[in-house]
Amino acid sequence: MKTILVTIPVNEVHKERLNKIAKENTVQYIPADLVTEDQISEASVIIGNVPADMIRASKRLELLQLESAGTDAYIVPGVLAGTTTLCNATGAYNRAVSEHAVALTLMLMKKLYLYRDAQNDSRWDDFGTVSSPVGATIVVVGLGDIGMRYAKTLKAMGAYVIGVKRRAGACPDGIDELVQTDAIDTVLPRADIVFSILPNTKGTVHFYTEECFKQMKSSAFFINCGRGNAVDSNVLLHALQNGEIAAAAADVTDPEPLPADHPLWKQKNMVITPHVAGGFHLPHTFERIVDIACENLVHWINGEQYRNVIDFETGYKR
Amino acid sequence: MKTILVTIPVNEVHKERLNKIAKENTVQYIPADLVTEDQISEASVIIGNVPADMIRASKRLELLQLESAGTDAYIVPGVLAGTTTLCNATGAYNRAVSEHAVALTLMLMKKLYLYRDAQNDSRWDDFGTVSSPVGATIVVVGLGDIGMRYAKTLKAMGAYVIGVKRRAGACPDGIDELVQTDAIDTVLPRADIVFSILPNTKGTVHFYTEECFKQMKSSAFFINCGRGNAVDSNVLLHALQNGEIAAAAADVTDPEPLPADHPLWKQKNMVITPHVAGGFHLPHTFERIVDIACENLVHWINGEQYRNVIDFETGYKR
Repeated sequence: MKTILVTIPVNEVHKERLNKIAKENTVQYIPADLVTEDQISEASVIIGNVPADMIRASKRLELLQLESAGTDAYIVPGVLAGTTTLCNATGAYNRAVSEHAVALTLMLMKKLYLYRDAQNDSRWDDFGTVSSPVGATIVVVGLGDIGMRYAKTLKAMGAYVIGVKRRAGACPDGIDELVQTDAIDTVLPRADIVFSILPNTKGTVHFYTEECFKQMKSSAFFINCGRGNAVDSNVLLHALQNGEIAAAAADVTDPEPLPADHPLWKQKNMVITPHVAGGFHLPHTFERIVDIACENLVHWINGEQYRNVIDFETGYKR
Repeated sequence: MKTILVTIPVNEVHKERLNKIAKENTVQYIPADLVTEDQISEASVIIGNVPADMIRASKRLELLQLESAGTDAYIVPGVLAGTTTLCNATGAYNRAVSEHAVALTLMLMKKLYLYRDAQNDSRWDDFGTVSSPVGATIVVVGLGDIGMRYAKTLKAMGAYVIGVKRRAGACPDGIDELVQTDAIDTVLPRADIVFSILPNTKGTVHFYTEECFKQMKSSAFFINCGRGNAVDSNVLLHALQNGEIAAAAADVTDPEPLPADHPLWKQKNMVITPHVAGGFHLPHTFERIVDIACENLVHWINGEQYRNVIDFETGYKR
């Protein structure tokens, strides 16, 4: 009889499902903010993002099933024992995050942020020309499930989509053109929109340099819904101030939360949402996380291969 | 040799195209705000929305090709002679207006107006649950080319679309269910979103009554990109204040422009854009208007049937 610790906010229906799968094992339901180190050290399976510094490489922990797609805090050496399998919730977030990114894209194209500001001043002001997804060249950096869904939605609205991914391969369905990450310079100058959905890994910290923004069109938009540290907030701010790009939107910032006195908040052509694209903001997302957790719990019980196993070296799915 | 008066802001390429079609006839290019009654009275063809009160039922005017889809100012008795054919620019606006409407829809679903307001206060605030087009029931009121394109885009994003139109008929491709306008009461209670793209006709003034909003879900959104007078601004304001619907967005208001002291401006869950969805805001729109004008000018030269002929009785295409 082993212990399964569940820290995600499950309801009674979810509990019934998990209890049934767990068989004779004990399932403990404890909210993430109340969990103790003792409880963590006793668990053979944890479902939820417990604080990384409380895991202390527990040798008992066989499976850590994250509620997030991001794995950055858990692949740091010393956090997990070599015998722990780390799985993430890739697949749960693509609907929520891609829709949020599409919403931000159209908000920039149609200047809705300027119109909202004008509304708050009761001003019936016309801000001129807008743009359209039809015929727009969109560079999607990161072709996981979120990037792919965003790409397909924009392509259905008439855009030409260039995908950027780490490894070479066949151009996936729904992408018009594929380049490898190290050749991004060749496509940035063509982009009307650059959409970044990079995770936080060794290779992605401050990935977008000053030079990247200089290569973009002055009419281009930059949208980041991956991890904030893909771009230094001051680099982004200067690109906007210098007119190297026309506008930007970000659901993630560097640092995060963005300090109240950071000038990026007040930059007129910058749209900020506070890391809300994913999380549990769309009820569907949480249902999918529970689905993935249940599937991997079945695999644990049966000694089968897990879904969404993370490679500690890259932070990506194996 | 007759006179063709063009008041839309054509460029040299457009002029060359129109001059060629016009053959031996004179083409006069005069901006709409500079045109005189004499110039109007001399024209056999007018391309552009000249002021309705300056036409004075000119008997010489054979064809009035509007730059707009709306025809309301020109179907008023006494404006046009019975011998004038009125054509509108239906077909030119569907890309621009439907995209603007989709942008507003996602802005409401993802609460981007609240996040913009929070950004202006440098606040990293979480506004909780959002909604998705997937599985949403969207009632599209008015199934012209704009309504149809909006419907298809949202359906591609996963929505269930109920179309509402004046006349019965087969359910068009891209619409899941069709009802007649006089049966709208049967579908309003099911709507997650009501999108109105009604023109201004005798039958559409203050079409959305207090009762309509009471029938909607308290979680529903109302979006108007048709004509402002489809709903009294005070009726809409009260529906929002009383929580009869969750939020609304409108590109058109009643009256228009909305007076600076109207409380609708400051209603937090109301998003207002100042009649900018159409017009010439998207360069593509103007190109399509020129296309339609050129096509009808060819028909005028050849004595053929026009495209987009308006029925004075209904204000719709015949």
